[in-house]
Amino acid sequence: MNKNHRPQKPQTSGAELILYGRHAVFSALANPKRRINRVLTCRENFAELKNWCETHHIDDTKIKVVERSEFAKILPADAVHQGFALYCAPLPNFSLEEICEMAAAKDSCTVLVLDQVTDPQNIGAIIRSCAAFGALALILQDKNSPCETAAMAKASAGTIDILPVCRVTNLSRALEQLKQNGFWTIGMDGYAKDTIDKVNKSGKNAVIMGSEGKGMRRLIEENCDITVKLPIDPRVESLNVSTAAAIALYEMKRS
Amino acid sequence: MNKNHRPQKPQTSGAELILYGRHAVFSALANPKRRINRVLTCRENFAELKNWCETHHIDDTKIKVVERSEFAKILPADAVHQGFALYCAPLPNFSLEEICEMAAAKDSCTVLVLDQVTDPQNIGAIIRSCAAFGALALILQDKNSPCETAAMAKASAGTIDILPVCRVTNLSRALEQLKQNGFWTIGMDGYAKDTIDKVNKSGKNAVIMGSEGKGMRRLIEENCDITVKLPIDPRVESLNVSTAAAIALYEMKRS
Repeated sequence: MNKNHRPQKPQTSGAELILYGRHAVFSALANPKRRINRVLTCRENFAELKNWCETHHIDDTKIKVVERSEFAKILPADAVHQGFALYCAPLPNFSLEEICEMAAAKDSCTVLVLDQVTDPQNIGAIIRSCAAFGALALILQDKNSPCETAAMAKASAGTIDILPVCRVTNLSRALEQLKQNGFWTIGMDGYAKDTIDKVNKSGKNAVIMGSEGKGMRRLIEENCDITVKLPIDPRVESLNVSTAAAIALYEMKRS
Repeated sequence: MNKNHRPQKPQTSGAELILYGRHAVFSALANPKRRINRVLTCRENFAELKNWCETHHIDDTKIKVVERSEFAKILPADAVHQGFALYCAPLPNFSLEEICEMAAAKDSCTVLVLDQVTDPQNIGAIIRSCAAFGALALILQDKNSPCETAAMAKASAGTIDILPVCRVTNLSRALEQLKQNGFWTIGMDGYAKDTIDKVNKSGKNAVIMGSEGKGMRRLIEENCDITVKLPIDPRVESLNVSTAAAIALYEMKRS
């Protein structure tokens, strides 16, 4: 049995997450794969939430109206909750096989692969860009990337409930499997000779990005068919990884 | 006298800023426009900093070696200082006239204009993207945008000391002046008909972005020659403003 395809253990430290903020909560409610335990809202938002659930045929029996002070008790001090919070289970992991099956049905698609990117807010922002530019999935290494967190869901502006996210045990092997499934592997590397706009974008592509400081690991880079860079001014050492990811995804989508 | 060209008052609440982190500190030291008061470093970094100053012909008499515990006393709890901190004056403001003079010497250039973007980290990240994609300057409204802060400098990864930043009193009037100086004004608006890749990028362009939630104000939009959008999936309401700015700047630079 391939190590990447082992049944996945739950992806968070606890069994329950508290999501917050309008986008994150509404997206989670609309996602049939999300197991909802309880929805908290304030009196002012109740009618809006109830109407929205009716329009979208979503169970509204788990909604509980609470005082605004209740949010402060259960959420981080700086959480911009907008009067919405939701107790739920973390999302189940997509397997690499599921991603490859989804890709098989398409003539062309892009997946984004992150090597050693660990900041939950960066990952959330990258999920949002993946969803915005129609990426098929985000692939992460299980060991070094954080589990789903409220901060990640919030930074994703609810798109964590739209985009398939796949955590694999061995990222090098995952790249090999993607190649066997017809993907062209494109590594982002500030020292590459060519810029990303020169890439042939037809077919199935996996774009691989390393961490901001260290880039891709050697073994990952060796699994890239090609490496390319973004055309940035030499006085600027690098871009934030979520910014670079957004531009790469935009470019892959650009006709 | 034009209101936009009044002598600017100092742009921070205090007269002194403490910058921190390797990029921010080295960039500030290399910027002749930055008035440096004192540089703090730890014992391990001293030789590196002194050599760097020698190589770059920078005054090293203001360097002071301190214990690592000193940084915790003067910086925010979560500040990633990397053993470097610097007491300095905030940067002087560029006037719109200076920006127009710099543009006059060029056949083509892009300036980025932000309407009502207030988060210092977003502004710092946008400064970094402006520098990365060779924008001539960033233009902000004085009243609603925050002064230079350490968090902004840090998010800019030191590029706040490379990119001219211009704060104006009246943004609508600034757009008019840019137009009089040969700029084409391109507003970013999620409801626009055309996408940004269809824009004629030759000549001088000002790209205008509003805040994430509310977009540009009506008066600002009326001063745009054209409005365009980024081609994002309809299921995703918007992108983070710094992500959208980075993509717009990349597209304007793309050949």
